[in-house]
Amino acid sequence: MGKKSVAECRLRNLRERMREENIDAWLVLSSDYHESEYVGDFFKCREYLSGFTGSAGTMVVLQKEAGLWTDGRYFLQAEEQLEGSGITLFRKGEENEISLEEFLIKKMPKGACLGVDGRTISVSGYRKLKKKLDQKNIQIRLDCDLVGDIWADRPSISHNAAWELEICHTGKTRAEKLAMLRKKLDEEAADSSVISSLDDIAWTLNIRGSDVAYTPVVLGFLYIEKTHAIWFVHQEAVNESLAQRLGADGVIIRDYNETEHFLAKESQGNNVYLDPDKTNMMIYQEVQKRKKACQGKIVEGKNVTLLPKAIKNRTEIENMQEAHRKDAVACIKFIYWLKTAVGKMHAEKQGNNKDDGREYQHAKLLTELSVAEKLEEYRKEQKHYLGPSFRTIAGYAHHGAIIHYVATGDSNLSLKSEDFILIDSGGHYLEGTTDITRTIALGPLTQEQKHHYTLVLKGNINLAAAKFRYGSAGISLDSFARKALWEEGLDYNHGTGHGVGYLLSVHEPPNSFRNAVGDHGYECMRMEPGMITSNEPGIYLPGKYGIRLENLIVCKELEKNTYGRFLGFETLTLVPFERDAIVAEELEAWERKWLNLYHARIFQEVGKYLNSEEYAWLREITKEI
Amino acid sequence: MGKKSVAECRLRNLRERMREENIDAWLVLSSDYHESEYVGDFFKCREYLSGFTGSAGTMVVLQKEAGLWTDGRYFLQAEEQLEGSGITLFRKGEENEISLEEFLIKKMPKGACLGVDGRTISVSGYRKLKKKLDQKNIQIRLDCDLVGDIWADRPSISHNAAWELEICHTGKTRAEKLAMLRKKLDEEAADSSVISSLDDIAWTLNIRGSDVAYTPVVLGFLYIEKTHAIWFVHQEAVNESLAQRLGADGVIIRDYNETEHFLAKESQGNNVYLDPDKTNMMIYQEVQKRKKACQGKIVEGKNVTLLPKAIKNRTEIENMQEAHRKDAVACIKFIYWLKTAVGKMHAEKQGNNKDDGREYQHAKLLTELSVAEKLEEYRKEQKHYLGPSFRTIAGYAHHGAIIHYVATGDSNLSLKSEDFILIDSGGHYLEGTTDITRTIALGPLTQEQKHHYTLVLKGNINLAAAKFRYGSAGISLDSFARKALWEEGLDYNHGTGHGVGYLLSVHEPPNSFRNAVGDHGYECMRMEPGMITSNEPGIYLPGKYGIRLENLIVCKELEKNTYGRFLGFETLTLVPFERDAIVAEELEAWERKWLNLYHARIFQEVGKYLNSEEYAWLREITKEI
Repeated sequence: MGKKSVAECRLRNLRERMREENIDAWLVLSSDYHESEYVGDFFKCREYLSGFTGSAGTMVVLQKEAGLWTDGRYFLQAEEQLEGSGITLFRKGEENEISLEEFLIKKMPKGACLGVDGRTISVSGYRKLKKKLDQKNIQIRLDCDLVGDIWADRPSISHNAAWELEICHTGKTRAEKLAMLRKKLDEEAADSSVISSLDDIAWTLNIRGSDVAYTPVVLGFLYIEKTHAIWFVHQEAVNESLAQRLGADGVIIRDYNETEHFLAKESQGNNVYLDPDKTNMMIYQEVQKRKKACQGKIVEGKNVTLLPKAIKNRTEIENMQEAHRKDAVACIKFIYWLKTAVGKMHAEKQGNNKDDGREYQHAKLLTELSVAEKLEEYRKEQKHYLGPSFRTIAGYAHHGAIIHYVATGDSNLSLKSEDFILIDSGGHYLEGTTDITRTIALGPLTQEQKHHYTLVLKGNINLAAAKFRYGSAGISLDSFARKALWEEGLDYNHGTGHGVGYLLSVHEPPNSFRNAVGDHGYECMRMEPGMITSNEPGIYLPGKYGIRLENLIVCKELEKNTYGRFLGFETLTLVPFERDAIVAEELEAWERKWLNLYHARIFQEVGKYLNSEEYAWLREITKEI
Repeated sequence: MGKKSVAECRLRNLRERMREENIDAWLVLSSDYHESEYVGDFFKCREYLSGFTGSAGTMVVLQKEAGLWTDGRYFLQAEEQLEGSGITLFRKGEENEISLEEFLIKKMPKGACLGVDGRTISVSGYRKLKKKLDQKNIQIRLDCDLVGDIWADRPSISHNAAWELEICHTGKTRAEKLAMLRKKLDEEAADSSVISSLDDIAWTLNIRGSDVAYTPVVLGFLYIEKTHAIWFVHQEAVNESLAQRLGADGVIIRDYNETEHFLAKESQGNNVYLDPDKTNMMIYQEVQKRKKACQGKIVEGKNVTLLPKAIKNRTEIENMQEAHRKDAVACIKFIYWLKTAVGKMHAEKQGNNKDDGREYQHAKLLTELSVAEKLEEYRKEQKHYLGPSFRTIAGYAHHGAIIHYVATGDSNLSLKSEDFILIDSGGHYLEGTTDITRTIALGPLTQEQKHHYTLVLKGNINLAAAKFRYGSAGISLDSFARKALWEEGLDYNHGTGHGVGYLLSVHEPPNSFRNAVGDHGYECMRMEPGMITSNEPGIYLPGKYGIRLENLIVCKELEKNTYGRFLGFETLTLVPFERDAIVAEELEAWERKWLNLYHARIFQEVGKYLNSEEYAWLREITKEI
């Protein structure tokens, strides 16, 4: 069956179910039941229905039409994947954009009914939608899963084994964390809390797993009370010894599928604390029922885990430094290998090939996909490496201008000894999570390319070197990274940085560097010492090339005086920038000094882990500019 | 009766009323019924009760104790004015601060009752308070005005004459504005709106008045419906001819005191739009009653006037430029006069007095208060000058370090031919409102003083010269003004800038440059071309001196290209910085160039309005640095 007829058939089945249920529009979100960014296969309803595989996209199906909303990262991919499906693509953030809410208001008659699986929509998301749909008295039904009903061969829900992270990697025991969270709940006048977000649960319990791609977490809900906690989890995922150790800390195991029943019927205590951004509507409604019955209240706020998880403790920071040393070894070896392979390819092309055939064959096979694999091989050589923290972006030449480009068999470009390749990748280690982008010159660059590279580098340095007063939020610091570009009428269409978890989500709120406030308001929360954030300005010339330079930086105390506490950053990532792309004269004296110190530090900390050729090369490329 | 016994007596009377009403704590806010920043004498309940005259302060009275909360601007003043009153001063923003809410939670028993005049608390303010007090089931009563009950000689409520601003000053007719607001209400699916904030009403109706100090507005409420509008205003304030002209535009006059009755009983239409930050709880409750009765809804959002008022039109901007030229003439004449008078005083002190006795006598009388009066005299010489836009701050030497210092008879310092004087002042003209701070050297400065002055100047220049992409908010730009200070571990405890109204409030939201988000979230709203904002970084050394350099800047379009729209600022204020205080070598080359161009522009635009001595002096102090 062709792509077109698959989508048609599935939409036809869905529309039939909609008619049976008297539902006029069906909404499909990208989320699982835990508001996760990446989700397991069981939850990929939107992909099942539309064929679009991007990580972000929302779909609406009416009887006569269907639309899918996604953001700039996925325009090209969505266009291709939706072709012939009869589903209209709506591009978020474009001028004259029609939002999903506007579309619904326009297309749905007064008093109509919209349906969405209540387990996949957050309380905040529901309220925002409801406020809009109230204008036309449109009802929202949350009690069915129509895609689930028609999805015959739906994959089973994941229940992979959970495993425990040791104290040398967490810095704090589960018991200490639970005690601290209970103290916070007490301050909020709450007796208990339901935590739905998987990384918050993993962090609290010092547990990791593999139920979600790229994020080593376990599907579950965590209920914390004054005297004990209950982890609702697929029982197969927890072996007896782990269950015993959890039990010793007052954490009881119950089945994942009992969560709703427990919350609606059994949960005790007066006031329960919930994060409306991280709790799905089904859970919320069950809790609400119970609270009404026992005259308790729901207290709303950000999860009490949010800040303790984001503010890394000393053990976590020291481990993250170690993870970044290992990641640097892999990346530097990789860049040396890539440059050498491209050099050989170039020599061969020029007819000057003096190398053996094997190397030449190898060089000829350089593609976006093959170099991404090679980088993964280097990471795998590192101790305690567990896997990639997201899908590698390796965009050669004009592909570098596609911000979240993912090479496929069709798009996969062969590399030549010219132009830039942009590689954004990261890994999970027992010692933490990395995320790095380097833009590597494969041959001679134009003046324009060098100038753009230098502007982006200035942005990276100006944020990395910032000194600021405690109380400032990411939104106040973001502009330091953009200033050099703004002055020339340039900018990039993404945030400058996102928080990074410790062997958890590579995109971890609340810390970030962004230029605008999102739905959750995280951008305006104070930057705290111990927070780890990416620093990744860029510049993208569609059809030509893209440049992005990403390091992780950890916030640290600098000075305390009568004017306040002053904070700054330490750069964790230890991989040199592209020497051939930097116009030294365009750097301020202090920026050049910062760069030279950074490169010297890299040579000192990473050099010793390289072979003699790599070592000699690193010495050269980290010399003073 | 001494200060102590006055406060004691009034508190005793209030406590008696509290007992009669079974109210355990009485809350006194600074606001009138319109959430105004400055209020008429009728509304000064907190001042009546406590003796504290600052513009911001909240008071709580319990049977056994009383507390007053104010911010850093007023710590010294409040300490002095509350001395002996038995009222405890709570300093907002200090470390280990006990907030008003925390105090109430701590001091009030479960189920107790807090009272506050419901006309003086905003819907947002009430909700925030209620959320906290709910923790202890503390009730809030809104239906009485206990201070009003005991205030025998309470001034009558102001009802001064309203007057009309002409089209050459407004740029838009009342009818155009009403039509535009109705369109916005339509987009919000609302049929009507109640506007409570006085500057929003004045802007909409092209009306000005004098019911509130420093803000030329008229007490009233405005109800806008699809076909007409009703202005609830003291009928004495509107003469027949004005009433007729308003009537011609569909604006009906009704008495101020009929507002609540009308909203509760007569208002038509389904959905009414309200700004919870700008509407008092009494009004909200009346509307709520009506909406329940007629099955309508309250739609909440920022007042529809907020952005159109803040985004000045071309006429307003051109007028503002004119107002700033006139204000510059006054300020430059004043600074020349001050410098000359101080110079003469200095010469006299040195025994070199060759001037006549009159001048010397004059110079001897230089004080903080007298120079502020002199500046006002120069402003009064300007055409269309209407009065000060706020109370002048003239802080000599260590008084300059008190951010909102106001000289009184007791504190008034005599000036000497040394040190800095910081003067922050502004005026209302028919052509708009000004607000300027200059820090003037009265004698030789130390290296430290010059260095600090230069750092603050760098901050001012870096914000004024910023180029940024459309979409950025004030919170993203504020750091440009702080960067030079932050790098040396310095900062200032106030926002970098506030919006300025057109012949309205000198502090006009939403535009601002601030480093943190306040209750209303204004800081995160986009900077739009046409917004006028102050740019006023500073540095304050308690006990030594303070430096603040404030210009108004208007946001303007710079460039539009494939990367977006880029905006920047034009500085409206045209008064030179203190040449003797600038360390030229500490400026970047481009900063120096910016300064020289600014000074050259001032000489060109203002020089022609000066006498020959002033002209010659201005030429000298605006020469290239």
